[in-house]
Amino acid sequence: MASRVASTSSVLLVLFSIFIVTCFSPTLCLNQYHPLDPLTQSEFNQIKSIIRSSYPSQNFTFQYVGLDEPEKSTVLSRNSKSTAKSHLPRRASVVTRLNKQTHEITVDLSTHSILSSKVHNGNAYPLLTVDGQKLANELPFKYQPFIQSIKKRGLTISQVVCSGFTVGWFGEGNTRRTIKINCFYTNGTVNLFVRPVEGITLVVDLDIMKIVHYSDMGVVPVPRGERTEYQASKQMPPFGPRLNGASVLSAGDGFVLDGNTIRWANWVFHLGFDVRTGTIISQASIYDLDKKKYRRVLYRGFVSELFVPYMNPTADWYYKTFFDNGEFGFGQSTVSLEPLTDCPNNAKFIDAYYASQDGTPVKISNAICIFERHAGNILWRHTEVTIPDEVITEVRPEVTLVVRMIAVVGNYDYIIDWEFKPCGSIKLEVGLTGVLETEGVKYTHKNQIDKEVYGTLVTDNTIAVNHDHFLTYYLDLDVDGEGNTFVKNNLVTKRVTDPSIPRKSYWTVVSETAKTESDAKIHLGLKPSELVVVNPNKRTKPGNHIGYRLIPGSVAAPLLLEDDYPHIRGAFTKYNVWLTPYNKSEKWAGGQYVDQSRGGDTLAVWSLRDREIENKDIVLWYTIGFHHVTCQEDFPMMPTLSGGFELRPTNFFESSPVLKVRITVPPPKHACALA
Amino acid sequence: MASRVASTSSVLLVLFSIFIVTCFSPTLCLNQYHPLDPLTQSEFNQIKSIIRSSYPSQNFTFQYVGLDEPEKSTVLSRNSKSTAKSHLPRRASVVTRLNKQTHEITVDLSTHSILSSKVHNGNAYPLLTVDGQKLANELPFKYQPFIQSIKKRGLTISQVVCSGFTVGWFGEGNTRRTIKINCFYTNGTVNLFVRPVEGITLVVDLDIMKIVHYSDMGVVPVPRGERTEYQASKQMPPFGPRLNGASVLSAGDGFVLDGNTIRWANWVFHLGFDVRTGTIISQASIYDLDKKKYRRVLYRGFVSELFVPYMNPTADWYYKTFFDNGEFGFGQSTVSLEPLTDCPNNAKFIDAYYASQDGTPVKISNAICIFERHAGNILWRHTEVTIPDEVITEVRPEVTLVVRMIAVVGNYDYIIDWEFKPCGSIKLEVGLTGVLETEGVKYTHKNQIDKEVYGTLVTDNTIAVNHDHFLTYYLDLDVDGEGNTFVKNNLVTKRVTDPSIPRKSYWTVVSETAKTESDAKIHLGLKPSELVVVNPNKRTKPGNHIGYRLIPGSVAAPLLLEDDYPHIRGAFTKYNVWLTPYNKSEKWAGGQYVDQSRGGDTLAVWSLRDREIENKDIVLWYTIGFHHVTCQEDFPMMPTLSGGFELRPTNFFESSPVLKVRITVPPPKHACALA
Repeated sequence: MASRVASTSSVLLVLFSIFIVTCFSPTLCLNQYHPLDPLTQSEFNQIKSIIRSSYPSQNFTFQYVGLDEPEKSTVLSRNSKSTAKSHLPRRASVVTRLNKQTHEITVDLSTHSILSSKVHNGNAYPLLTVDGQKLANELPFKYQPFIQSIKKRGLTISQVVCSGFTVGWFGEGNTRRTIKINCFYTNGTVNLFVRPVEGITLVVDLDIMKIVHYSDMGVVPVPRGERTEYQASKQMPPFGPRLNGASVLSAGDGFVLDGNTIRWANWVFHLGFDVRTGTIISQASIYDLDKKKYRRVLYRGFVSELFVPYMNPTADWYYKTFFDNGEFGFGQSTVSLEPLTDCPNNAKFIDAYYASQDGTPVKISNAICIFERHAGNILWRHTEVTIPDEVITEVRPEVTLVVRMIAVVGNYDYIIDWEFKPCGSIKLEVGLTGVLETEGVKYTHKNQIDKEVYGTLVTDNTIAVNHDHFLTYYLDLDVDGEGNTFVKNNLVTKRVTDPSIPRKSYWTVVSETAKTESDAKIHLGLKPSELVVVNPNKRTKPGNHIGYRLIPGSVAAPLLLEDDYPHIRGAFTKYNVWLTPYNKSEKWAGGQYVDQSRGGDTLAVWSLRDREIENKDIVLWYTIGFHHVTCQEDFPMMPTLSGGFELRPTNFFESSPVLKVRITVPPPKHACALA
Repeated sequence: MASRVASTSSVLLVLFSIFIVTCFSPTLCLNQYHPLDPLTQSEFNQIKSIIRSSYPSQNFTFQYVGLDEPEKSTVLSRNSKSTAKSHLPRRASVVTRLNKQTHEITVDLSTHSILSSKVHNGNAYPLLTVDGQKLANELPFKYQPFIQSIKKRGLTISQVVCSGFTVGWFGEGNTRRTIKINCFYTNGTVNLFVRPVEGITLVVDLDIMKIVHYSDMGVVPVPRGERTEYQASKQMPPFGPRLNGASVLSAGDGFVLDGNTIRWANWVFHLGFDVRTGTIISQASIYDLDKKKYRRVLYRGFVSELFVPYMNPTADWYYKTFFDNGEFGFGQSTVSLEPLTDCPNNAKFIDAYYASQDGTPVKISNAICIFERHAGNILWRHTEVTIPDEVITEVRPEVTLVVRMIAVVGNYDYIIDWEFKPCGSIKLEVGLTGVLETEGVKYTHKNQIDKEVYGTLVTDNTIAVNHDHFLTYYLDLDVDGEGNTFVKNNLVTKRVTDPSIPRKSYWTVVSETAKTESDAKIHLGLKPSELVVVNPNKRTKPGNHIGYRLIPGSVAAPLLLEDDYPHIRGAFTKYNVWLTPYNKSEKWAGGQYVDQSRGGDTLAVWSLRDREIENKDIVLWYTIGFHHVTCQEDFPMMPTLSGGFELRPTNFFESSPVLKVRITVPPPKHACALA
């Protein structure tokens, strides 16, 4: 992860007919207004004009502009009311930077006015802007000491590209709003991250946009970067492996997009977007064939924070402990998806908007894609061979719906998928790909290494640095209503006491209810337990509590020392699972402000209050974790490595919700002539 | 899991053009003979005739007939020799049951003779046969006490179906070769497993094929089984959800089947089949574009055992601790796959054969399918936004190859997938679906429960009994050759000692080599570690050891007491990972003979020798585990729940093997007219 500086609009090679739906745009969505709709292009313009007119002559920057969510009770009561826009408040949260101060402004869009404005007093700084980073990255090229350092290395300045890295916090008292600039030597390649120019550190104060510190620790060879070109057009033979692309020919049109609400199979949910997090799924409900109604599952879910600490503690590298969501903005880092490659041919695309540093809306074309996945899996099946002279086979193939965005934070590409399954599961997955961060070293073989290195020597002069990825999800589950309880169904071994039974043991479920937050901090893998969010106010016909269970996937816990600064700032990763009572202001696990944060506003701190969580509106926080020991296969482009988890109904339905599924048979393969 | 009694040939509804390839048949494969090819139909007939002529007047049964694998050295040396069949030994292993004794016979197919024959002396019994189970299941219907018990319950005997369950071993001294018979009341439905007739236990001696014990413990209501019909044709409205099926329209023909050898993308491997395990993958190698040759990864891999203990310790249920592979035969339980539903439209199918109880080959049509998966995933990607005024996006969609079989052991359906990825990964996955085993009880609501129950009350009078699934895979990895070493790359926290660095800690990799078997017994999840099988005799250009790493997925450890009989028999599940030196006779984790085994011949016992495993030909054993706390959604048909793990190259290649992948673009979607 480094900074993102260029325009987000990508050059699209639209080969075939592509469905582009732009329902974050106001004109199409006016009649399907939803109170959680993201800010529209015209609303961004309106906000800019309201604020500009209130602060006419000031040189301030927009650091964050997003929807100020209506109260949950307001949103929930909407179903029984008119859906007209005028009946609901429409507000925006704006964070600006002005005179080295952070201003928090609430704008009322209905009344075209500023509702409130205050200066934020705290040590941490708001989201970086794309424009600010771009300006900072240009500064070295007018800075003589830097130009001399490049010359001293025998490098051509025109082939140097610089990128900004957040500085973290390491116990300093007073701080300035700075970033560190690292530079790379492209020399004809576009794979800059494999060619770091080591030894040079520039520090830029973003508030005054000036270089405030410069050091050149000495020359290290720039890796030659042979065989690191990744553009298809520039590859030389031999090529391979050869793969067959494919088109999906579906029997139907897939999902329905009604405003920003998606209806598909037995699911309905609202799709939002925010500059800080990207995709937001709201009000996901599933249709119950027995009860003849949609039943609530998830009020709101999104990636709350992404913590990526690198494991190189040297002077040039130690600070690289990034929070990609709160520092760089996962939504702001969302890239335009390539039809047919990032998403299959049956995908539909949605554009997204965010405010640039001067408040102007920036469009990300094809920011999100939605597609039916036909992976060749089986929803359920059975072959019955026990009945004499009869064989019964019933099979239902699986179809799921995927909502995808991809955030590229400098070198790394994060594929963020929400997958909705007809059986009631929601599967959350992240795919890691892109380019590794590398350190230039003098070595070309492991046996030359004469002092500790902090990763794998992947090619000449190149260490791919070891690191972690922790993605923390915010999941405000409302399992059939708000009043929910977190239950640990512990599997406990029992000894058989009946002497007539020759077997000695079995396991049984001993349920443990989490009364307060401290009961719900979980290190996964330590004891066998099913973790379930139940609605204690409702039961199924046989009397089971209605619930959704968590099926963990790839987990990892941080390995930094407890008193180390990055650990304090990233303390929300200390447990794999946390539960908190719903609190509108507790959305960002790493804190409202994360750049140079000191860990005072994290999930770990909120949770110290040990609030009651039994039969409350509760939020589940889950962290997907990876320890990434780098390897040569990850270089120069990392094949996607995925991790995820699943939320799956458990006694939510009276019986399988897919027993009576109906599958429309697709047209036969040979009805399609190869073009 | 109960027994399998009917014919394996399923009624296929072949809607569209289906590719059926029968390269386990001798005629097609003669010229592509491979020494690990499974026995062909004519070879089964030949074996039958050789044995029948040697034991002309005897009333014996064939319990197992399979390939007697040639020595590994013979197979490996084959590449440099003639591939003609006559140059290689061709032998079969046969296990028969005769006069209450188990006979082990080796047949030489080249000389049409019996090479060796001996009586096996041991407490455990061979694989059950389909025919034997069928005969046993018919016995109750001629047994008056049983007919009376059914009458006493007011049930109609013609609506009763019986099924055999292995009895396990619980400390008994002398045993007979018995199974227990449980019966179900269909009463018009085909979902018999949801309608158990409780209280009645019949014990059949399979050697004399007679009922040797009968008890009726009293009447328990048979669950009514309302809403448990699962056949599509018999469903009543309302239906739903509605899903769109789809066809895959590929740009190419997919893989090449050359005899039983499959070539696809950069992979080549041999596909085998055995009555005990089903699919066997052998000699999987991946093409290295740099070295211009195929390099070895896996010599042989298959499901070695599947242990399914139920958690009901009462008199009627305690013994239900099944070993589906060694008792029922996972290959024998393989069902015919349904085109378009079990496998997508682009799948090709292969038939398989096994020997029936009288030695005659039985054909399983469409036993295995092979298809390219186009799941909409991304092989690798990057969008480069750091270079001023330039955006570069390169994306390669993922295509993988799946080899699938489905074993149905009574009530449960196991979907066994091998997935080969172009990046070098092999992903092993199992999907659990089918019908849960249920116990009839008097309760209709949880609040009536007055004594312990052993699962979830899923509907009136029906407890779905809690249980585990442990699938243990045999993986004879040969990472770039036979001499391999198992390395634990432990992630260890280090304190920063340089006072000029404000950061306090980082993690680093401390490698630990497993010298002997005891060093390689792993409980996953206890400490952060990457587990790698390396070839210590080879290094990459930068000097890293060539390796493949294990990426664990769903794991679980057994919770039974150490001294409990099922735990002793299933002791191979005690660790998630084991490594052993290659030994031709150590294939079956639960023992060569498993029915009523006493745990004397398991992986856990072999491993007590604590043999050297450093730089040896080693075998990795991995167990996918599930603790299944049942829920109402699993009833009456369980939506597939999946688990798995991955073997992924780590410093096996010099760099990413998919950087220069070439993807053939498929024809455009709209070139296909909807039929």
